[in-house]
Amino acid sequence: MNRPPLTPLADSLPASVPFVGPETLERARAAPFAARLGANESVFGPSPKALNAMAAASADVWKYGDPENYDLRHALAQHHDVSPDNIVVGEGIDALLGYLVRLYVEGGTAVVTSAGAYPTFNYHVAGFGGELHMVPYRDDREDPDALVARALETGARLIYFANPDNPMGSWHDAVAVQHLIDAVPSDCLLILDEAYIELAPDGTAPALDMTNANVIRMRTFSKGHGMAGARVGYALGEAQTIAAFNKIRNHFGMCRISQAGALAALNDQPYLAEVCAKVAASRDRIAEIARDNGLVPLPSATNFVAVDCGADGDFARKVLEGLLAEGLFVRMPFVAPQNRAIRISCGSPQDMDLLAQALPKALHAARQSNG
Amino acid sequence: MNRPPLTPLADSLPASVPFVGPETLERARAAPFAARLGANESVFGPSPKALNAMAAASADVWKYGDPENYDLRHALAQHHDVSPDNIVVGEGIDALLGYLVRLYVEGGTAVVTSAGAYPTFNYHVAGFGGELHMVPYRDDREDPDALVARALETGARLIYFANPDNPMGSWHDAVAVQHLIDAVPSDCLLILDEAYIELAPDGTAPALDMTNANVIRMRTFSKGHGMAGARVGYALGEAQTIAAFNKIRNHFGMCRISQAGALAALNDQPYLAEVCAKVAASRDRIAEIARDNGLVPLPSATNFVAVDCGADGDFARKVLEGLLAEGLFVRMPFVAPQNRAIRISCGSPQDMDLLAQALPKALHAARQSNG
Repeated sequence: MNRPPLTPLADSLPASVPFVGPETLERARAAPFAARLGANESVFGPSPKALNAMAAASADVWKYGDPENYDLRHALAQHHDVSPDNIVVGEGIDALLGYLVRLYVEGGTAVVTSAGAYPTFNYHVAGFGGELHMVPYRDDREDPDALVARALETGARLIYFANPDNPMGSWHDAVAVQHLIDAVPSDCLLILDEAYIELAPDGTAPALDMTNANVIRMRTFSKGHGMAGARVGYALGEAQTIAAFNKIRNHFGMCRISQAGALAALNDQPYLAEVCAKVAASRDRIAEIARDNGLVPLPSATNFVAVDCGADGDFARKVLEGLLAEGLFVRMPFVAPQNRAIRISCGSPQDMDLLAQALPKALHAARQSNG
Repeated sequence: MNRPPLTPLADSLPASVPFVGPETLERARAAPFAARLGANESVFGPSPKALNAMAAASADVWKYGDPENYDLRHALAQHHDVSPDNIVVGEGIDALLGYLVRLYVEGGTAVVTSAGAYPTFNYHVAGFGGELHMVPYRDDREDPDALVARALETGARLIYFANPDNPMGSWHDAVAVQHLIDAVPSDCLLILDEAYIELAPDGTAPALDMTNANVIRMRTFSKGHGMAGARVGYALGEAQTIAAFNKIRNHFGMCRISQAGALAALNDQPYLAEVCAKVAASRDRIAEIARDNGLVPLPSATNFVAVDCGADGDFARKVLEGLLAEGLFVRMPFVAPQNRAIRISCGSPQDMDLLAQALPKALHAARQSNG
């Protein structure tokens, strides 16, 4: 058959998906999950004000969204006390990471991240021909010193660092993160992914410094704000860094309904505070259930808890499969030794009751299968 | 200041926007437009069933959308009598064009389009370092023979061809388009952009042949289905061509509300037929208003009409500016001699009344300024 050739780079890439979605698993098992605790979504949902704003915006969905995201960028600027020129809005952090990699990475460009950190970032780096260098976690946290050392060693253009971290839920305090920012090589950009920052303790995020062109910070409405399905993320950075997105981004890529929902969500900070309290309660409940079953919950500054299953990755995988079989969608870290844990997203009290019922069964099955 | 360098390609690109949005113009004039007739949106809006589906989906917006777009792809497959493997869904045709260009274009790759055709396609080609070759329109239509000849001459990897065409509203019948498809060089992919196809006369679209790897067809929910703000497009093509999108696309890029809305819109074909009738009536009304003012409406198979203002681009620009000053958002072709026209999207009867009032004033002002 005639077939126009892909570029050599595109041809070399696998046809892959960074994550299998829960819907795919539900279709495979021919039944919906009883609890959806695997993608660090917020079962508490968005602010009712955001829901109202989205309903109102639906009537105008025949119009393209504003390609400048003017209203949302200006509200974010006011919220963060920065200039609108320091903000770019995109179709979730995933899309912004893709644009950012495209701006800085070409064939052979060195990029540094942690082994077991966010796979979608790695997907974008591979997709633009970059060379990924990985450093291990240290005590279940990303290791700032090792990231910088590897960047210096490889002449890296980008460093990826999530704080708080996914999939472990661990974090560094603002002082440590500021040390990292200050140590970034001058020809390198630190991507500080703060997707979970609204859920972290005070003192986790260093102050915003919009004059520093060596760091860009990623935020989202998917986690604390409970709007993962709306696809709204943003980046905060030095103005010229931010302006570069306009060279390549999909200017008309934002859903108009999502723009309106994010704006209303931002303006309802009391609701966000309520969500943070519910998340904290659910983290405690997950920890309690884990301990009740002899497992060790790891400290978390996010809307999920990594639960150490006390053995290797194979055992944790069996526990995970047991939970899936009981109708609970959960995920787990990819890389040893972090893959001794399973990762459970916060949920409603009912979700937690289901977890409390399912975990002993999953553990029993895993132990039997191991024994 | 320290500044990590962009890639040479990214550095060379202007920080541009393919189109200025109407909201930007409204902010500049400090007043909303009375009629929004410039972006070929559908003022008739989406099906009420789509609105209901979007309202229902809002309650689940805390969940990421299905990265496989399974339900929508399967419904589209049934609708078009093809396999789901022949369909990829994306964040509007704009995003799909970006992915497609990324798959086939690297530095220096030749690409052929028509001078004055869709600027966002050109934006993507430039953004991936491709070399654009343009052929002129012929009798206000894209010229299939010239496109193929230029592709052969330049060894082009991609040809862009919109049918019906934007910005002229002109079209070729299915026989002519099939001739074009058959003439595409074997190492070249024809992008057949059919964004307006639902609004075109029967016999405009050639039969779908999902075994042909030299053509890919782009469709959207933005035009006939009235959901531009939702950002849902799709491509129809040979399965291996379609599978390549999974190498690079933003798998979690789709808004969950938009997925639900598009599915419901697809399932309400009677509503689409009503919209087509309203569009046809509005086209007739635009033509009548044009003729009442001594101008020549060009035939259109879309939801807009290019109106020949009877002089050069400068004159048409003045007419356009007169309409903008009267509160009517309209646009015009970029390239001579097509820029002798202004492009007016179909609207409600009230929109058309506003046009009937504003056009004589705009013409008067343009003629005075010229005289």
